[in-house]
Amino acid sequence: MAIRKEMIEVAVASRKASRQMANLSSGIKNKLLLQMATALEAAQKQLKVENEKDLSRARENKMAPAMVDRLVLTDERIGAMAAGLREVAALPDPVGEITGMRLRPNGIQVGRQRIPLGVIGIIYESRPNVTADAAGLCLKSGNAVILRGGSEALHSNRAIGTILQQVLQDMDLPQAALQVVTTSDRDAVKELLQRDQEIDLIIPRGGEGLIRFVAETSRIPVIKHDQGVCHTYVDAAADLQMAEQICINAKVQRPGVCNAMETLLIHRDIAAEFLPLVTKSMGAQGVELRGCREACKISSELLPAAEDDWSAEYLELILAVRIVDSYEQAREHIETYGSLHTEVIVTNDYRLSQQFLREINSSVVMVNASSRFSDGNQLGLGAEIGISTSKLHSFGPMGLEDLTTRKFVVLGDGQIRE
Amino acid sequence: MAIRKEMIEVAVASRKASRQMANLSSGIKNKLLLQMATALEAAQKQLKVENEKDLSRARENKMAPAMVDRLVLTDERIGAMAAGLREVAALPDPVGEITGMRLRPNGIQVGRQRIPLGVIGIIYESRPNVTADAAGLCLKSGNAVILRGGSEALHSNRAIGTILQQVLQDMDLPQAALQVVTTSDRDAVKELLQRDQEIDLIIPRGGEGLIRFVAETSRIPVIKHDQGVCHTYVDAAADLQMAEQICINAKVQRPGVCNAMETLLIHRDIAAEFLPLVTKSMGAQGVELRGCREACKISSELLPAAEDDWSAEYLELILAVRIVDSYEQAREHIETYGSLHTEVIVTNDYRLSQQFLREINSSVVMVNASSRFSDGNQLGLGAEIGISTSKLHSFGPMGLEDLTTRKFVVLGDGQIRE
Repeated sequence: MAIRKEMIEVAVASRKASRQMANLSSGIKNKLLLQMATALEAAQKQLKVENEKDLSRARENKMAPAMVDRLVLTDERIGAMAAGLREVAALPDPVGEITGMRLRPNGIQVGRQRIPLGVIGIIYESRPNVTADAAGLCLKSGNAVILRGGSEALHSNRAIGTILQQVLQDMDLPQAALQVVTTSDRDAVKELLQRDQEIDLIIPRGGEGLIRFVAETSRIPVIKHDQGVCHTYVDAAADLQMAEQICINAKVQRPGVCNAMETLLIHRDIAAEFLPLVTKSMGAQGVELRGCREACKISSELLPAAEDDWSAEYLELILAVRIVDSYEQAREHIETYGSLHTEVIVTNDYRLSQQFLREINSSVVMVNASSRFSDGNQLGLGAEIGISTSKLHSFGPMGLEDLTTRKFVVLGDGQIRE
Repeated sequence: MAIRKEMIEVAVASRKASRQMANLSSGIKNKLLLQMATALEAAQKQLKVENEKDLSRARENKMAPAMVDRLVLTDERIGAMAAGLREVAALPDPVGEITGMRLRPNGIQVGRQRIPLGVIGIIYESRPNVTADAAGLCLKSGNAVILRGGSEALHSNRAIGTILQQVLQDMDLPQAALQVVTTSDRDAVKELLQRDQEIDLIIPRGGEGLIRFVAETSRIPVIKHDQGVCHTYVDAAADLQMAEQICINAKVQRPGVCNAMETLLIHRDIAAEFLPLVTKSMGAQGVELRGCREACKISSELLPAAEDDWSAEYLELILAVRIVDSYEQAREHIETYGSLHTEVIVTNDYRLSQQFLREINSSVVMVNASSRFSDGNQLGLGAEIGISTSKLHSFGPMGLEDLTTRKFVVLGDGQIRE
């Protein structure tokens, strides 16, 4: 019950602070983010001392080295957090924009104005930089934010939170606009997820287990940043050299992220020519290929794929390969096994390119480009808070605008309804 | 378990049909809606026979006359359903629109294209016209729809569904694009709300109990159409005659709907003049006034308001009245007791009107107009599927566009990421 009381206090304070934050000018919000950047840089030593507490516990607990690496705060990483805050400060403020102001027949003017969502909760794991990155985006868009990181980064997250809160206080802004929940009580998240009276949106960032738990437990709307089973379909009318380069880039440039290619679909007519080409260059990059029966016939270097391979998000140097009879079969495959993240067609057939863009309803669809571009920065949103794979509110990379909503504004002159 | 299997079949068939519906041209979709309108009109007799079954059961069960009235299908009401479908057919199709196409520094072009949500579930009560109205909006926006009405309208809803499905079949479109769930098993809704793999959005329409049940049970995103505790704040700088007319209209023109005024806030400086004015004209319309202590001092005709009155959605001829010291106190009141639906200021103070529009973050905010305009048709959206009081995805009256989402489209020429 103590934890419930504590989380209610956190949520209520956040709701109260959100009212003040919603009405700050862009100038004040930008100043806030810039001063937060400076404060983080000034606190490098202190941050590293706190971070060391997390690291030594991680080593004691024999955490995997890759996980430990994510936890580490170096001067460079602290600098990157500060740079991130400055970048967000430089982005245009979505709040306040009025669009579509129209005169109705009775003389009232009706438009829609962009406003902050209110209170955003971020539930995340591992990387302490999320604390500063998510705070920057939420505050710039006029929201209050409640941050709950993993217990493995408790000291680091708390230290970052304290530094950022101090800046709020120095600027006479409500400290509750940014709260880091650092209690070790595991029920804290459960309690927060019940506070639908105060919290407007929950964004979970982390592994599948975390996302499922949050989605199933929350009474607050959740935007899932789920897996990316991204496909590249190389059509019969593709420029094969271009296709090869796009495929290599999509698979190996950074295999551990959600916009990396996981399945390659190849049209039958060019398979005999293209598959050996791509097998060779993928092999040179250390990629393990797992093919359908027909693909294995063409190239003996492929391992046979199992049913599970078609829906696998490998996040490593493994690629599933399937030969298809037609675009329609490729589409069917994507609809059956895809995760609505990002799909690419490589083709020089105009009509087919248009059909692909029209018919494939994943969050990002591309013609003749690497799936690695599926990212808020690359697509021109500026910094992103993540990539939504659910369709409500926001689909695909989410930028500042996605942390806002719109209200209707009506300007009348005494009109009443007949 | 039988009901689970049945609902899985409904959901899977809907998902499959949604793929075909998503790619229909506007021309085909409009033709579909127009033919559905004609089919409903042609089936008046049959519809009334089925409706009579619901009505006689309702009378047997001694349903309240107001509830029975909602159930009745007359020729006029069937005509109104047909007219509604024709109206939606005439609206612009939001699907396919590409906005913000921009060239990125590396030469890829990036834009956002509007696409259907996929499968929409509507859970509603009483009025059988919702079956046709909601179906029209969902189909026009390229979605498949699953409709689950109340058991009290089972025969009427089933008959409407059968007629509309026949039109789908006649046009060689998938019948599963529109499914009416008429099993009497009460677990049907519970099972549907678990189908987050197939259903993209649930919209509950009905009383508080239904909405709360759906929101708490659903694993699918829900857009709540909750209560409207709408405020009108009459400022010291208001034109009092205008204020009187707006208040009367907002309270009595149709008291039983969510955009009717429930609380009147009056600035202290004009209370002695305005309150007797409004008391007299409200009294003439049969409105019962419940006032704060100060209001009761000014006018002896007011009953004393209890704390509950400030958050009441009366939906009848009762009005809560409070005298406030300032705009700030009015704002505080709205933030404490409001339901984020619609708030109105009556004032001739320019600066204050702007401040009200900026600071009050309900779904619709108005200056000098009746809250009764808070409706999709009045605000220029065309027909509406409801009024959302939650901020995610859609806030305020929801039209066709709110039944869609946007994907990113990327046109490349072989670009890869450095």
